[in-house]
Amino acid sequence: MLITSKDNPKIKELMKLDKARERRISKTFIVEGAHLVKEAFSKGLVIEAFSLEEKDGYTQLTEAVMKKICHTDTVVTEIALCKMIESNKLEDRILILDKVQDPGNMGSLMRSAVAFGFKTIVLGLGSVDIYNDKVIRSSQGAIFKLNFREEDLTKFIPTLNDYKVYGTNVRNGIPLEDAAFDKKVALVLGNEGNGISEEVFNVIPKNIYIPLENTESLNVSVAGSIIMYEMSKNA
Amino acid sequence: MLITSKDNPKIKELMKLDKARERRISKTFIVEGAHLVKEAFSKGLVIEAFSLEEKDGYTQLTEAVMKKICHTDTVVTEIALCKMIESNKLEDRILILDKVQDPGNMGSLMRSAVAFGFKTIVLGLGSVDIYNDKVIRSSQGAIFKLNFREEDLTKFIPTLNDYKVYGTNVRNGIPLEDAAFDKKVALVLGNEGNGISEEVFNVIPKNIYIPLENTESLNVSVAGSIIMYEMSKNA
Repeated sequence: MLITSKDNPKIKELMKLDKARERRISKTFIVEGAHLVKEAFSKGLVIEAFSLEEKDGYTQLTEAVMKKICHTDTVVTEIALCKMIESNKLEDRILILDKVQDPGNMGSLMRSAVAFGFKTIVLGLGSVDIYNDKVIRSSQGAIFKLNFREEDLTKFIPTLNDYKVYGTNVRNGIPLEDAAFDKKVALVLGNEGNGISEEVFNVIPKNIYIPLENTESLNVSVAGSIIMYEMSKNA
Repeated sequence: MLITSKDNPKIKELMKLDKARERRISKTFIVEGAHLVKEAFSKGLVIEAFSLEEKDGYTQLTEAVMKKICHTDTVVTEIALCKMIESNKLEDRILILDKVQDPGNMGSLMRSAVAFGFKTIVLGLGSVDIYNDKVIRSSQGAIFKLNFREEDLTKFIPTLNDYKVYGTNVRNGIPLEDAAFDKKVALVLGNEGNGISEEVFNVIPKNIYIPLENTESLNVSVAGSIIMYEMSKNA
């Protein structure tokens, strides 16, 4: 089948998924680019795949229609409508994000989480939507290798009894190199501008910080990744 | 003085600086936002400052004119025209960037470079322009605390006789945790998609890599920052 019109009902449905709310209701999202489509297929998450070419198992789109759906400057050859995976599993290393806002940071943190064995990401209220096209793009497929939970962090963190939970804060913090980490760890990162919010800070038992040469601060995805790297080394 | 028109010759000059080529010719660039303007003043780099308010030492702009110049979604209250600093100084720790393309990554690497004492950044041909508005924004003022050089890396790297130069590559690489670093180190990072280019790889004596749990890769600013962190600890 070849879809040539932007007014095709299927295309209209896909375009609705630009909105986080629509994605949430339908529990579906779109990935753009052959690499991500392949990853989605390998995880069994593809509901329908679309290609510029005539291809087995794909619905064909004209370039104009593809352009309409895609967010990248260059037109991709393939996209896929995928279903969200939901899981309440908690693995040994947990990354907890309190209002991380920048899509690039979110995607970059996902890549690091996969790379350093933090297989569960817990998202507090007010974080950027992980199915946002920019997040998916910068996650480079890591989004398919993690399980996500959304929680009210002030209630969730106190339930992590058998985990050592670490915030990132100089206040009441120990320098990263002095910390010894256990197998079951949870790392809490905060907002780009404001750090961990006060109410979440209040339920975190321990804090660590990265000693810096001066008063500078690090990008949150950089800081979080350095700590995950150290935690994975020490585990 | 209050400028009310976008056609004012001064505003036209400022708007030209959107183009890397114009910045390069005039050796000037614009910073947006009160925080960055303050940093620029403290470094003595401000040629002319502009504000929405009537303010001593500032040229006043209407909001419409300010909006025309600025790149952020929210209107800033201050901007400044700044002069570029040029310096050929090489400090003990050098960060060398081979075609890093993403403005966010460039800005994030600048922050980490300042934080971990890499005070010189050497830019190979084909890197994103450091005076790009997105780079400046994500550098969070780090751009004022570094000195930059542009070099042909295939010629420049072999001149670093008294430095230990490290590329980032699994090929011929040693794991990061096995490396012992000297005081004078240079770290070479490559392009987001392709890594270090072949011709640059060929002039690098030694490579390191970050051991990961699987076949994932890290964002270049994350990988570079983890290595800079380790190098600054070991120095």
